[in-house]
Amino acid sequence: MAVRFFNGMEPAQSNELVVEFATDPSRYRHWRVSYEGPIARVEMCVDPEGGIKPGYELKLNSYDLGVDIELADIVRRMRFEHPEVRAAVVSSGTDNVFCAGANIHMLAASTHAWKVNFCKFTNETRCELEDADAFSHQVYLCAANGTCAGGGYELALACREIYLQDDGSSAVSLPEVPLLGVLPGTGGLTRLVDKRRVRRDRADVFSTTAEGIRGKKAVQWRLVDGIFPRSRFLDEVMKRARKVADAVAAELPEGEARVGIKLGDLSPEITETSRRYRHVELSWDRAARTASITVRGPSPEDVALLGEGPAAIHAAGDQLWALRAFRELDDALLYLRFNLPDVGLCLVRALGDAEVVAAHDAALWGQRDFWLVNEVIRHMGRVLRRLDLSSRSFFALGDAGTAFVGCLLELALASDRFYLLDDPENPVKVGLTIFNEGVVPMSHGISRIRAHLHGEPDKLEALAGRHELLDPEEADDAGLVTVLLDDIDWEDDTRVAIEERASLSPDALTGMEANLRFPGGETEDSKIFARLSAWQNWIFIRPNATGAQGALSLYGKPERPIFDWKRV
Amino acid sequence: MAVRFFNGMEPAQSNELVVEFATDPSRYRHWRVSYEGPIARVEMCVDPEGGIKPGYELKLNSYDLGVDIELADIVRRMRFEHPEVRAAVVSSGTDNVFCAGANIHMLAASTHAWKVNFCKFTNETRCELEDADAFSHQVYLCAANGTCAGGGYELALACREIYLQDDGSSAVSLPEVPLLGVLPGTGGLTRLVDKRRVRRDRADVFSTTAEGIRGKKAVQWRLVDGIFPRSRFLDEVMKRARKVADAVAAELPEGEARVGIKLGDLSPEITETSRRYRHVELSWDRAARTASITVRGPSPEDVALLGEGPAAIHAAGDQLWALRAFRELDDALLYLRFNLPDVGLCLVRALGDAEVVAAHDAALWGQRDFWLVNEVIRHMGRVLRRLDLSSRSFFALGDAGTAFVGCLLELALASDRFYLLDDPENPVKVGLTIFNEGVVPMSHGISRIRAHLHGEPDKLEALAGRHELLDPEEADDAGLVTVLLDDIDWEDDTRVAIEERASLSPDALTGMEANLRFPGGETEDSKIFARLSAWQNWIFIRPNATGAQGALSLYGKPERPIFDWKRV
Repeated sequence: MAVRFFNGMEPAQSNELVVEFATDPSRYRHWRVSYEGPIARVEMCVDPEGGIKPGYELKLNSYDLGVDIELADIVRRMRFEHPEVRAAVVSSGTDNVFCAGANIHMLAASTHAWKVNFCKFTNETRCELEDADAFSHQVYLCAANGTCAGGGYELALACREIYLQDDGSSAVSLPEVPLLGVLPGTGGLTRLVDKRRVRRDRADVFSTTAEGIRGKKAVQWRLVDGIFPRSRFLDEVMKRARKVADAVAAELPEGEARVGIKLGDLSPEITETSRRYRHVELSWDRAARTASITVRGPSPEDVALLGEGPAAIHAAGDQLWALRAFRELDDALLYLRFNLPDVGLCLVRALGDAEVVAAHDAALWGQRDFWLVNEVIRHMGRVLRRLDLSSRSFFALGDAGTAFVGCLLELALASDRFYLLDDPENPVKVGLTIFNEGVVPMSHGISRIRAHLHGEPDKLEALAGRHELLDPEEADDAGLVTVLLDDIDWEDDTRVAIEERASLSPDALTGMEANLRFPGGETEDSKIFARLSAWQNWIFIRPNATGAQGALSLYGKPERPIFDWKRV
Repeated sequence: MAVRFFNGMEPAQSNELVVEFATDPSRYRHWRVSYEGPIARVEMCVDPEGGIKPGYELKLNSYDLGVDIELADIVRRMRFEHPEVRAAVVSSGTDNVFCAGANIHMLAASTHAWKVNFCKFTNETRCELEDADAFSHQVYLCAANGTCAGGGYELALACREIYLQDDGSSAVSLPEVPLLGVLPGTGGLTRLVDKRRVRRDRADVFSTTAEGIRGKKAVQWRLVDGIFPRSRFLDEVMKRARKVADAVAAELPEGEARVGIKLGDLSPEITETSRRYRHVELSWDRAARTASITVRGPSPEDVALLGEGPAAIHAAGDQLWALRAFRELDDALLYLRFNLPDVGLCLVRALGDAEVVAAHDAALWGQRDFWLVNEVIRHMGRVLRRLDLSSRSFFALGDAGTAFVGCLLELALASDRFYLLDDPENPVKVGLTIFNEGVVPMSHGISRIRAHLHGEPDKLEALAGRHELLDPEEADDAGLVTVLLDDIDWEDDTRVAIEERASLSPDALTGMEANLRFPGGETEDSKIFARLSAWQNWIFIRPNATGAQGALSLYGKPERPIFDWKRV
């Protein structure tokens, strides 16, 4: 499970717990994972005593953040460490219950911020599971060998196929609305109608029926893909998994043997106000309510290694710059989200040599047919999406020594603003590579440069394939820069902008950024983070859910909730 | 202005004010409208003393619901009463200020429900203004002859073109985030990046700059389409309006003279528990927290009239069934939203003769090239979208005497569930017409039948062009019905379903319905009602905005807001 400790130094104001996201199989407390050739078994066996926070028991395979941190680790490691897996069967190691969903007592006892952050992380994990299906030839099948309720069914919905034990009692259900007065917000409502395409009036009936639906009707309503009697349930699902694995394997290049690499610890150096990783540094200033994330770009040696081909790349494994740097960035972002709640603005810098970053991207892309490089690239995309979805303001600062190029330019394009220094004595270069052209798309399906230049198709077209490095003025003319500043103005102007930003209402900024960052269409993923999550966040703070007499607060208690009946 | 009265009979619990939406030019208090051939002038001159509620002054052309009810009336009447208009110029009749946006003191003093309802209505009005441009050849141009702030600029954003007076001080601005700690939620953020395609980092700067942007920079950033000095500002905009009007007129059939019709009062008969219109009845049961909306279908005479052609249709004017019935439905829906807040479930019935409704739809569609019929059809679409966006549960009840066919079947397809009686002794027919095939789309751009059968393309295809009437079982097989019940079960089963629904958390239902009703993609309109509005609703209830020390609560007072800095 996730390491947890009270660091005793400078705890987050509302929340003494400092959450660490690093884990590995030797530390899992809630899951059993086993591998047999192309098939993986992922069994949920939540330790009731293993809650990440005190005060609740994780009964009936209900989960909290700690359980989900392990699941995220499983999904991620499977892609890197067990690339031979083609089908993963998710089931329960607990009798008669697959999963009861997010732990209600944990939710009821949590702050609003914790609930929202927890839901976002669990949503990201489920999107990652679908990402593994879409891009890593690893298909998840859910074997619901018992009750599959709420977040349990939402986990099932993230799998490509869902099978339900036909035993006269096991049902799938989304009881959040009738029992808790909140939404099935971990993608449930969206995946129901958009992914599984359950008819929306039936989705209405299903989502208001606390006891759920089982047996043939669950199949007819598309809630599950099949039912099998208890006696042969797991056998049948495993049979199906092997069939799926064969079909997936048939799509792969013949004879390709995928041997995993190990994802080692990142082991940042921790101080009272910083976390220093090898390539990334996160530091913060609580008084100013700002943080900085600085990413150091690749070295010429990193580039040269990529040129040596698959064997050398495989040997480098988790020490590859693109993998290690983005794993570090991911950990830093999660730390920022959960442990630095009062930090509203994060300054982003990418240090290094522009030419080397450009060469790196080209070299990495050149090896994309190697499965490991594909995984590295997909991973970069997921981390960047985590950045897009983080409720913090981000200002990219392109001052002396920075190299916002290619995969690092994505950091600036993901930011709310990009300040760039125009100083002939400290020439800063900016540039595009293939990594800015749709390789690592946003959750609403388009590249960051396309979102950025949504209204300037001419500029977008002019940049297509233009992979040379740009002077600050060229970058500004190209539409990449928010504010171009000369040396004289840089310090004052950025200082004022930073102070102003840090002074604004944190909620208004969160809502504003969630709107401005996503011009253009929506996808199933972005609907989950926008439409569904925004409504859930609203409901989470309404007295009907979380007030003293709200349904979530009173769950499991003898009192009935008392609602303010006014429809809003 | 809107009639307002304290009806003294059975006031809404939290809100003694009963809002009536019927108005007409003779009652306007806040707008001056004048017509000269193809050009209309719409001048905002808000009466500071004319607030719809007591307790605030509408200074600086700020608006409240009463002001917006008049604007909605202007836009709607222009389409029916002044179809000769090709361009409408919206400006201010107040010196040096175009519009200061929604009145802050009104917002700060309003309940959460009022704020949310108010914003939804204003959003619908702005969408209607764009609808007039898209479908009625009536283009709105904004002449911002003074400060254009917040909701004032959001009104401008709904116009096709925006012109700003260049006088060294007039600016466009969205100061909601920096000054009030809320969002520009009347479409502002969405239209900024999605409609006007302002670059999203510039939109970030603009939306956090309280004083706004003026002059050439406003043009460069696409915030406005042009600036003119004060001395010739209105002349220049009128010149431009005439040009636009000419261009629009050139798209119309030559020689077509459009003569308006009058939209008369609906004058419902009002009792303590009902509003009875000619074709529609709204009744409610506060104790049960339910309401009923019953729409009576057209008569054979209504159909025959349509067959007589444009002259007869024009002579019938606002007495045309399709216009009158949907105007009544619109009024009933608005009454339900604003005045019956504790009613959570609305039962919908469509009475009449199925054959006649089918014939009606065919006859109306046959006359669609006549401008008035086009307007009638577009109006039906807007009313149905109002239904989709109403935060109430709707159950359609297809019992004896009902005729859910064509435009009335849309009521069932817009509902969360459709219960249909299968009783040979009381044969109920259901059927599709052209009106179910995309003529009156939802706000996310697809027809209700397409949203309903999002997951069943075969069934959707089987229904395409299948315009015969269906028996209950056929309708069920076709995928149209949620629950088919025989006569023995009807009463008990619907009663239980109604009681269950009325017992659930109103907030959870609102969020659930907002998600399940919109399978598929999103459009600019639906992003406004989903992503933007859901975030705004969340912010509206956060202490940082509306708490005792929140920014909205303290606006205009000497105290500075005190924020809880935690980012959520």
